[in-house]
Parts: sequence; C-alpha cells; structure tokens
Amino acid sequence: MNGKKLNIGLFGFGTVGCGLYDVLKRIGSKNVEIKRICVRDLSKQRPIDAEFTDNADDIFNDPDINFIVELIDDADAAYTIVKRALQMSLPVVSGNKKMLAHHIEELIELQARYNVALLYDASACGSIPVIRNLEEYYDNDLLTSVKGILNGSSNFILSKIFNEKMSYADALKLAQDLGFAESNPSLDIDGWDSLFKLIIITIHAFGLYVAPEDIFTYGISNMNDADIRFANEKERRFKLVAHVEKLQGNKLIMSVMPQLISRNKYIYSVEDEFNGVVIKGLFYDKQFMFGRGAGGYPTGSAVLSDITACLYDYKYEYKKRNDSQMPTYTTDHSFRVYYRYSDYADLDLVKFESVSENYISDEYKYVVGKVSLRELHKVQDELRKRNVFIAAYPND
Amino acid sequence: MNGKKLNIGLFGFGTVGCGLYDVLKRIGSKNVEIKRICVRDLSKQRPIDAEFTDNADDIFNDPDINFIVELIDDADAAYTIVKRALQMSLPVVSGNKKMLAHHIEELIELQARYNVALLYDASACGSIPVIRNLEEYYDNDLLTSVKGILNGSSNFILSKIFNEKMSYADALKLAQDLGFAESNPSLDIDGWDSLFKLIIITIHAFGLYVAPEDIFTYGISNMNDADIRFANEKERRFKLVAHVEKLQGNKLIMSVMPQLISRNKYIYSVEDEFNGVVIKGLFYDKQFMFGRGAGGYPTGSAVLSDITACLYDYKYEYKKRNDSQMPTYTTDHSFRVYYRYSDYADLDLVKFESVSENYISDEYKYVVGKVSLRELHKVQDELRKRNVFIAAYPND
Repeated sequence: MNGKKLNIGLFGFGTVGCGLYDVLKRIGSKNVEIKRICVRDLSKQRPIDAEFTDNADDIFNDPDINFIVELIDDADAAYTIVKRALQMSLPVVSGNKKMLAHHIEELIELQARYNVALLYDASACGSIPVIRNLEEYYDNDLLTSVKGILNGSSNFILSKIFNEKMSYADALKLAQDLGFAESNPSLDIDGWDSLFKLIIITIHAFGLYVAPEDIFTYGISNMNDADIRFANEKERRFKLVAHVEKLQGNKLIMSVMPQLISRNKYIYSVEDEFNGVVIKGLFYDKQFMFGRGAGGYPTGSAVLSDITACLYDYKYEYKKRNDSQMPTYTTDHSFRVYYRYSDYADLDLVKFESVSENYISDEYKYVVGKVSLRELHKVQDELRKRNVFIAAYPND
Repeated sequence: MNGKKLNIGLFGFGTVGCGLYDVLKRIGSKNVEIKRICVRDLSKQRPIDAEFTDNADDIFNDPDINFIVELIDDADAAYTIVKRALQMSLPVVSGNKKMLAHHIEELIELQARYNVALLYDASACGSIPVIRNLEEYYDNDLLTSVKGILNGSSNFILSKIFNEKMSYADALKLAQDLGFAESNPSLDIDGWDSLFKLIIITIHAFGLYVAPEDIFTYGISNMNDADIRFANEKERRFKLVAHVEKLQGNKLIMSVMPQLISRNKYIYSVEDEFNGVVIKGLFYDKQFMFGRGAGGYPTGSAVLSDITACLYDYKYEYKKRNDSQMPTYTTDHSFRVYYRYSDYADLDLVKFESVSENYISDEYKYVVGKVSLRELHKVQDELRKRNVFIAAYPND
C-alpha cells in the first residue's frame, strides 16, 4: 500500500489508544488518520472529538477504512476483531499479547492465506523493537537465548520496593495511577503478561510455539520482607525475568519467574517501568536493548511504527518457522533456586534434587537447592496459593 | 531479488571479511555464496580455498556475480568500487565508514538513479542495528538526540586504563592484537572513526548531512595520569562520546570528544570493545542499545544481515531527507569542559566564556569552564598538537 493513505478503524481507547491518537496529532501525519473508534462504553466522556461507535460493524462496513488497529483489553474480543480483519484482507496492528500468545499459530496461517499483514511489535516490549530486530537483524545468527524484563509495572513495583523501601501495596497503587499497570494487576505481578510476551518472542527467535499452560510461570506477589532482606544481603535484586534458552541437543527451555540478579548483569540496572532484553547469539555474543516498556506515548508511538511499517508493505516473515532444525520444548532442566516457606508441608511440595543451604528459624525458613522446571511446573498453582516464595538463584 | 541466490563478489579479506566467510560457512547458508574475493596482495597465505584475484575487473566482469560486498580499508578504493557497483545496478554492502561519511550524499543519489540498494548498517556500530532501527522504527518519533560510544577499540583502551590500570601503550597494543583496532590507530583514538559513524547516523536520524571537517572532533590520545586521577576523584570515567542533538529552533549540534561520564549514565557501564547508543525522542523518552561494536564475527554477522536484507529487497528510505523541516547545523553552542594544560600559552588557545574552577600547581593545571563548539572547532588541530587535554564535563 505504498503511497496510500491509511484510514484507521481503531478498537479501544485506553492508555495506548489515547497515546496513539496524541502522537499522530503531534507529528501531524498526513498518511495516517484515525477514521473511527470503537469503544465499549459510548457514554464515557472522551477528551477528543472523533467519530466513536460501540458497534464493530460500523468499522468493518465502512468502505473508507483500510486498516485496523486493535488495542483492547479483552483477549476474546481482540481475537474476533483480528481474525475478522485478516479474513477481509485488512492489515491489522494488535497490542493484545494474551490473544496473540494463544492464537498466534492460527493468525500466522491466516496472514499467509489472505496475504495480509498482522504486526504486533508494540505488544512485546512497548517501545523496544525486539520482534522486528529478531525478524530482520538476528535472522542469520545462531541465537542461544533471549532473556529480559518484559513487564514494566512489576519492574516498577520491584524498583520502588528495592530503591525506595516502598510497601508492595503502595507501589502497585502508584503503578496503576501512572497508567503502567494492566486493569487486572495479576497479569503483571503474577507473570502472565511477561509469559505472553515471551511466547511471542520465542516464535520469532526460535520458530517454536509453546502454549502458555506448558510454561512455568510464577510472579512476585508472594515476596515478603524476609525475601527482600535475603536479596539485599547477597547484594542482589529480585527481577521478574522471562527467559528462553536453547540447550545442547536442540532443546528449548522457557520460564517466567523472579530471579536473584547480581550487580554485574545488564538487567540489574533496568529500573522502574523500563524493559530490558538481552539477546545472545553465537556471533554477536550478546546485545542489550533497553527502553520504556509501558505508558501511553512510548507504546502509542511503537504502535505507530507498526502502522507505518505497513505503509511500506512490511510483513513478518517468520523465517525460523520454516527451519528444518526446529528445537523441541522441554521442562527437563534443573537449576538453583531460593525457596522460602513457612510450613514443612510447603517444603515437601517441591522435590529438590539437592540442597546446598538450609536456614530455619521461627520467623523465616528457606532452602537453596536444585530443582527441575518440570517439578515446579507441576505444582505452580499450589505454589501461588501457599505462603512460599521461589526465585531462580544463578551462580554468577 | 526474492528467492534468488546471491553470488557475492567480495572486496577485502581482513578481520571482517574473514568473519563474514566463517559465519556463512557456520550457518551453511544456501542462498548466499562468496563467489570471488578481490585482495590487494595475492601472494599472502589465506586460510581458505576460495577464488582470489587482485583485479576488480575479475569481479565486475563475472556475469554470475550479482552482489558486491566491500570490506576494505582504503576509502578511495572503496568509493570507486561502490560507485561502479551502483552504476551497474549491482546491490552493495559497504563497511567503509570513512568513505560513506565523505560520499554519502552522492551515493544516496546514485541509489535512486539506478534503483539499487546500498546498505551499511554494519559500518555504523558493528553488531548494533542502529541505522536500521532509526530508519524503520524511530521514523515517527520526534528524535531529540543520539549519543553513544561508537568506537570499540578506544573504549577498550579506556576500559583497560580505568579498570585494570593498564598503560595507554599496552592497552592499544592489546586492542590491535585482538583485532579491534583499525590498521591506523589514529582513526580510533583520535575520534575519526566515531565521527564517520556519527555522520552516517545523523543522516538517518535527522536527515542532515554534515561534512567531517565541519564537526569538532577530538580523541583520547592526549589523556594523561593527572586527567585519569581527576576523573576518578569525581567518580566519573572518560568515555569517547559521539553526540548529535537537536536544540530549540531546529538547530543541530554535533561533536566527538571525551566526556566525563557519571555513574548513573547508561554509557558509563559500556566496557571493553562494546558500543552503546542512547536514542532520545519525544515519545519514546530514551532507548539504549548495546552490543559488540568490533571484531570479525559480530561485524561479519552484521554484514550478513545487510546482505540478507537485500534478499528481501530492503532499501534505506532516507525518509528524514524529505522532511520539509530539515534542521540546520550550528556550532554556536556552549557547554562545560575540563581543560588540562601545561603552558599558559595553551590556555590562551581557547576563549572561555566563563571559568568556574581553576587549579594550578607545578605539575598539573586545569580549568573547568564554558566554551563554545565554534571556539573549539577553530583550534582543533592545535589542540591535538599541544600538551592539553579537553573533555566535556556535563553537570549531571
């Protein structure tokens, strides 16, 4: 659609939708215009004068609209919108990681069938163009791992707790007030948002799709003061890390969980609502990309980059999907963890392969030991409910 | 040239050329093959068995060769090769920053006239895809500045000096032995290499071309132990920083010079041969990209990314060049510097607008004061010759 004008049908007008609108206005774009906006609640006061509707048909039946931008919270509704657009051969930009993480395989197939682009760089890391770089720039490197802080609001909370001794509740409230946190905070703090992004990244980095329910995912909501003291004593910080790595034998491991990060690591210094991604490859060694992972303007602007990429007929090629040497997913991998518990029954929940540290007092009990992703994944729902906290504790 | 096979005519087989060859072999690429290699010295022992020649015609007259990769040291010869390739409508990848920094405007024009691509992402920051990201991803943002450590070997030397108390000469020797340094070390340590990269980056970030001779450029070769002590006392480090920034009134300033960088800055932690670039924009706030800026494998792999981009018909669009609001270049900008000298005559060389610190002893004299880029640029050759050292000393 080179040289053409994009008339956008926009779904959703929350933080990112508003950000996109403002960014477009600010740069005075001539090729891109928001023609109509579909929202859930028409009665809500909107700060702008644009054409609003609460009926998706008003967008899909408008012959002027030649581009769909989907920025809504509801993953099921997002799926319906994106699928309908692709089936009409309308290019789409989506910001819904949850929807993508569940339906990406079908959506890749639909893009090919209807020869139309679905872009979602803004969904994976806010303003860091990690997908685009994996697609285009790291396509020849033999990648070994991608690891990062992919959720701005949980990182914001951790920063406030570690740097400003803020309480968990206050930090969460502040993140929500500033517009970083999703409307459902569990998405952020329990690791789901990071998980969805990790799944999207893995598709582009290694070609493989792994369903959310197959990946060990554990957040920061069980962390308490004793855990924070432990980290400080070791001169480390907890960071919520999403991680995919190719092991020997072409096996892929994935996880989302807190990690005790030492000072000499890049992601140690990723503060507040920023995201940071470390990409490791055989030839590049390591690269670090860092930027704002949340907020209306940075993400709105990233959405606009996706939109204008379509002006230049850009599509993801999913090159790694056609690789004959596609890796296989495994949870058969052991690593060192810190595991804080209160009842001995909680300790029995997880089968440790070995224990190297064991501390017991009336107020505080923990072990440091080796455990497999498979073991953790089996009991992940239980872990969340009990008074335990678990974090990866790498040797370096 | 989608689906086509690239038969490469390669010019130069130094560190990067070798790296490219090894990377290609390692990934077992089927679409990309080095058909023939043109080198200066045919008698030199080569570790591989490929078709070598010392005559450019053998490459340009080979009807099988449909792609040129130019990785030689000599800027004039590189210019001749790249120009000849473009005029034959052969796509080219070039790694010669010096040549690009001098001839980029003509080469942009030739690309348009012959409808053929010249890519050079690998030239600007080794393995960090800064050009590609500026072109494609930050194209909508209202950029305010790009600032970074763009030269791996001078940074390697500074790291060894500051972290391992190595002598300047030993550090330089080590950098050369490891293959990071250019064959002419002045290119690295006097800031020229950073300057050329800055000029290329500025074309893509702001659209404007500024000739090398118009930009204040000053390196680290005059730095002595007293300077290093000064930096340590202030808990800062010297870094050789290339910097372009848009000021109010749509004015652009550019410089390459040492800066006293404080601990809380991203580039403070860029160590050894790594490069780091901070991109600031109105919407994104700031982004930081970090990776290996030198070495055969990382750069060879970056060259391969440029090559395969051509397989997908990728071209730089130079969008900012068509901007009606192109900024104008100025040296009319004052800032704080640290200026160490030995003779009073050397102090008179530079006209300070104000002086806030003045230290005099028999062994060591310096001032801290405000000076304009225009003043510094006027005397830059003199500054290099005399026993003085000057570094930007930002307030933050």
